[in-house]
Amino acid sequence: MTQLFVIKIGGNVIDNDIALQQFLGVLANCSQQISLSGAKMILIHGGGKIATKIGDQLGIDSKYIDGRRITDDATIDLVTMVYGGLVNKKIVAKLQGLNCNAIGLTGADANIIPATKRPLVKSAAVDGLMIDFGHVGDVTASQINIGKLQLFLENGLVPIISPLTHDGKGQVLNTNADTIASSLAISLSSIYDVRLIYCFEKKGILENIDDENSVINLITREKYQQLLVDKKLFDGILPKIDNAFAAIENGVNEVLIGDAADLQQNITAHTAGTLIK
Amino acid sequence: MTQLFVIKIGGNVIDNDIALQQFLGVLANCSQQISLSGAKMILIHGGGKIATKIGDQLGIDSKYIDGRRITDDATIDLVTMVYGGLVNKKIVAKLQGLNCNAIGLTGADANIIPATKRPLVKSAAVDGLMIDFGHVGDVTASQINIGKLQLFLENGLVPIISPLTHDGKGQVLNTNADTIASSLAISLSSIYDVRLIYCFEKKGILENIDDENSVINLITREKYQQLLVDKKLFDGILPKIDNAFAAIENGVNEVLIGDAADLQQNITAHTAGTLIK
Repeated sequence: MTQLFVIKIGGNVIDNDIALQQFLGVLANCSQQISLSGAKMILIHGGGKIATKIGDQLGIDSKYIDGRRITDDATIDLVTMVYGGLVNKKIVAKLQGLNCNAIGLTGADANIIPATKRPLVKSAAVDGLMIDFGHVGDVTASQINIGKLQLFLENGLVPIISPLTHDGKGQVLNTNADTIASSLAISLSSIYDVRLIYCFEKKGILENIDDENSVINLITREKYQQLLVDKKLFDGILPKIDNAFAAIENGVNEVLIGDAADLQQNITAHTAGTLIK
Repeated sequence: MTQLFVIKIGGNVIDNDIALQQFLGVLANCSQQISLSGAKMILIHGGGKIATKIGDQLGIDSKYIDGRRITDDATIDLVTMVYGGLVNKKIVAKLQGLNCNAIGLTGADANIIPATKRPLVKSAAVDGLMIDFGHVGDVTASQINIGKLQLFLENGLVPIISPLTHDGKGQVLNTNADTIASSLAISLSSIYDVRLIYCFEKKGILENIDDENSVINLITREKYQQLLVDKKLFDGILPKIDNAFAAIENGVNEVLIGDAADLQQNITAHTAGTLIK
């Protein structure tokens, strides 16, 4: 099968112009390099703090219930502008300037990612209160329209996907970028040999949270159990590892968690970051 | 040749939620109808007043020199958000809800519309002053990348294009939607039988500007000369007619100027609006 790299970058890169420019330079370079062997690439980007900044200027309050953010009408318009417009099209134009034939998409475009509005959930704090998260979309790998993604990939395009989906009834929905990345990776593993790469702010998963040089090179199921028993992992990283194993159990070949600055090594070989396999 | 409808809607429809919803309903309906005979459709939308409104809230001043608007850094970010994000993705999601497989694009996406930054021009008012319009892109039909547009059209997608292009060096540019529509129509006339439809706020070109019932059904070159001699045309409409004839002389089959509310008639037949041929 043809190899496909599904790469996710988070807000820490989006919010830093220099880091973003550097990252896109490496991405464009890798894209040209891998295309020589017929391999393909998809980028999923998060939103960054710029939406909050612009929202503040527009007087759009971030609303929370039980500590969880609510996407009301004003907020979905805000993130549609910022994620789907400003962030996405800036990335696309910059990649085009680097000879990478990028195409910016939300999940609504070509109906690539239909989603389901998140159902109401019971409040933990207020008895009897049901929380409506607003325009938030949950996606599952089986809903993804891989036909159109394959069409773009097989015709030399690099899809750049913003964390927006739609309900199929006319409404844009806000969706977690990590979830989009893993759902895309799982669904596309039926036709490609997929490596899912999460770029984050550390060099990889660390055995010692205070030591950037303690990157764990490889985590297998057995190794993971041992790390849990030894209590060597920072709690915050556990959901990321669980998600990685879920992706692998559903067809993804391997998941790599590492620094955006090490993307080149994480694509051409595996000399940086943590490989989960 | 397969028929292609290149349709442009302006700000008056974008700014009115009810008019927009109604227009998109008709558009989705027409799209399904024409696809039965294999015909294709592209929509180009203008920006509307919403960018100015959001710009005011963000403290982004509209700058003018010699009465002409300048697209500075803040303004290109604003229109990238509003045209490429908010307006474009709202239209796409609504069309998806109407079973029309829309894909929202700027000229940077898949490099469909590379443009050239507008060169500096001499000020008419201030001697020696050269005006830099900022991030404004001029397009010509020959620059359009019709290969990727054809790929989308032949695979059941309806491109929804916002008035943004790019310079191929990493910068998004602001481009007039009417010009994008005519450039697309001309370039695609090499592979399709193109009808270019400009939706505007009147029923068509009027023989008497005060009488909505005085729509001129057909304007040929001869008829146009006669109307000019008789001084029957409102000055403001002359550039639109000149552009229409330029499109026809460069391969477009026919140009129709009419009301957005009459789109159905202007696609399935020609029982409303002004046909220029």
